[in-house]
Amino acid sequence: MKQIAVIYHSAHGHTEHIARQVAAGAASEQLAGVRLLKAEEVATHPEELADFDGLILGSPTYLGGVSGVFKSFMDKTGGLWRRQQLRGKLAAGFTVSSLPSGDKQSTLLSMLVFCMQHGMLWVGNPYLPGPVAGGEAAINRLGSWTGLMAQAGHNAPADAFPDGDRESGWLFGRHFARTLARLGAETAEPTGVAA
Amino acid sequence: MKQIAVIYHSAHGHTEHIARQVAAGAASEQLAGVRLLKAEEVATHPEELADFDGLILGSPTYLGGVSGVFKSFMDKTGGLWRRQQLRGKLAAGFTVSSLPSGDKQSTLLSMLVFCMQHGMLWVGNPYLPGPVAGGEAAINRLGSWTGLMAQAGHNAPADAFPDGDRESGWLFGRHFARTLARLGAETAEPTGVAA
Amino acid sequence: MKQIAVIYHSAHGHTEHIARQVAAGAASEQLAGVRLLKAEEVATHPEELADFDGLILGSPTYLGGVSGVFKSFMDKTGGLWRRQQLRGKLAAGFTVSSLPSGDKQSTLLSMLVFCMQHGMLWVGNPYLPGPVAGGEAAINRLGSWTGLMAQAGHNAPADAFPDGDRESGWLFGRHFARTLARLGAETAEPTGVAA
Amino acid sequence: MKQIAVIYHSAHGHTEHIARQVAAGAASEQLAGVRLLKAEEVATHPEELADFDGLILGSPTYLGGVSGVFKSFMDKTGGLWRRQQLRGKLAAGFTVSSLPSGDKQSTLLSMLVFCMQHGMLWVGNPYLPGPVAGGEAAINRLGSWTGLMAQAGHNAPADAFPDGDRESGWLFGRHFARTLARLGAETAEPTGVAA
Repeated sequence: MKQIAVIYHSAHGHTEHIARQVAAGAASEQLAGVRLLKAEEVATHPEELADFDGLILGSPTYLGGVSGVFKSFMDKTGGLWRRQQLRGKLAAGFTVSSLPSGDKQSTLLSMLVFCMQHGMLWVGNPYLPGPVAGGEAAINRLGSWTGLMAQAGHNAPADAFPDGDRESGWLFGRHFARTLARLGAETAEPTGVAA
Repeated sequence: MKQIAVIYHSAHGHTEHIARQVAAGAASEQLAGVRLLKAEEVATHPEELADFDGLILGSPTYLGGVSGVFKSFMDKTGGLWRRQQLRGKLAAGFTVSSLPSGDKQSTLLSMLVFCMQHGMLWVGNPYLPGPVAGGEAAINRLGSWTGLMAQAGHNAPADAFPDGDRESGWLFGRHFARTLARLGAETAEPTGVAA
Repeated sequence: MKQIAVIYHSAHGHTEHIARQVAAGAASEQLAGVRLLKAEEVATHPEELADFDGLILGSPTYLGGVSGVFKSFMDKTGGLWRRQQLRGKLAAGFTVSSLPSGDKQSTLLSMLVFCMQHGMLWVGNPYLPGPVAGGEAAINRLGSWTGLMAQAGHNAPADAFPDGDRESGWLFGRHFARTLARLGAETAEPTGVAA
Repeated sequence: MKQIAVIYHSAHGHTEHIARQVAAGAASEQLAGVRLLKAEEVATHPEELADFDGLILGSPTYLGGVSGVFKSFMDKTGGLWRRQQLRGKLAAGFTVSSLPSGDKQSTLLSMLVFCMQHGMLWVGNPYLPGPVAGGEAAINRLGSWTGLMAQAGHNAPADAFPDGDRESGWLFGRHFARTLARLGAETAEPTGVAA
């Protein structure tokens, strides 16, 4: 069975709440095993990531980017990068901030660039907003395709997300697992290549 | 057999030269059929893109982004977007400018965001630079992973690329075809979804 | 008196509506003269931009970037770029789409990269959202700092923006004019430079 | 006299070497006082940044973004952000990696978004490459305008930069100081605003 890791940092529980929605969606059709991992713990033994088939990254947006804790985790994957041990795996990202746009797209793009350096594939959030676009219950109500965005105030309870954001997280996870199920094993790269 | 479209704009032949390298690499292992398409022509009948399994986008970098011709083609895909006819396909991008960095990364990211809106998957340029990194013959000598970069002066002949850039184009195309070969058909999305 | 150009493209009037708010704010304190210019007209004689002290760019967000019409205008400034005739001027950008986030940040960043290539300075949208953050009447309710974002549905009347977006446009323009008023003339660059 | 802070992180001395070039250029015309500050030290008392008129940020590019150390410093400026104490100041950024492009543009854009959230102005690297574009001695040989890029191998001595990169750093610093000299004090924002 394929394995998915949802690697996240959450200072106040909001990002963790969405991470759990994403993980639940990813596990919902039994297409893959799913584990929730804290970025600060993975940073202590990053080599375990090589055992997963798909990685979903989650961080709050702090001042327009991933949190310092999350970036420090990213930096710990240098050895995996040099050995190209994540190459060909599937990746995706999500982020949470307190405003509708809130410079969350730059956070998602920084996760994408990181995953590209590792030679991974990227799958976004392919849902058109529903008929109640902009309403609290609408799927992808914020309008984000590069990855998943969710919105919650800093001082709100950790689960105080609009219903649309929660459902979007679940669908995002399920879509990731479905996409991973489509993906066969990578062929070995021959050492001698020529044009 | 799966079908790949390499859709490009080239004012002076440089981007077309790389497009041909990419197409040759994509076709090299007979994993898919490959067609070279001019963006300005596709713009007149964009619905044909729905027939392909993978799309590779190529544009020169003009002032930090895709060319106006290429963006105008992109805008013509609005109907495909509304009907989500490109959803689940594989996508990638390449760009050419006259300087080593030359703000080509912003061009690649704009292609990526476009493909994410269409619900496609993205595959980058997963090659670590070789031992002669930075040398003219090195693969991925410029150091770009989000997509392929190649460098040629405006006034240089259309084929005046360093050998490394030409070979990188070929490998980039081959990797795209190999990745597409890994990708199974998308499962239908049930209309009723629930969290 | 310093002169500001608000250069915009608007297919259905929404972006023009915000452009008028921005221009009104920019003119409100008589710190500069302000002209509204259509991008497609400026594209026919781009050299006129050299006569302005500040440029504010405005485009709808189409599939994650500026419109093809707007990018085609951008490409027409190549001569100004080669002669560095916009160097040292002040620049800013705004964009409109139908969803709260809607990949508008990538549009703003593409405007920024363009202005950087021209050697201009960039001023964003420096307003913290008000106490009713997220509410329709709040300033910078969407949470965008790199530039101004506004939201209106494609099928809505051209002036159907939340009050907060309209006021944000006006404040954004006024802040631009105030910033321009702070900015003295650029010193000449000596031809012989040395480290 | 205006004051400039060059805030950098450098693990192996390369980014520090460029930081010194930038600082030397910034100080060369006695237009401002210049201080070199380590990001990890500023993180312990970030409020000191409110005393400067201009901030130049410098970080190595690690996997397509600023280093974890640098992002952790950024996150420590949350109090300055809430009180908007950096608003209206001038900002710029530079980065170092081992390859010509090396996804350094995404690093510069992440610095830019951060500074925009703080309400600062941004000045880039406004130099057209010289006639020996691409050569080791050329100014802005890599072709980067959003900020300064420099290239050095991880295992190379800390000062092993091409002459063009060193001179570009010096010019970038001088241009920053000249631009800061053009910038007058910010006018107070009236508390009651209205459209």
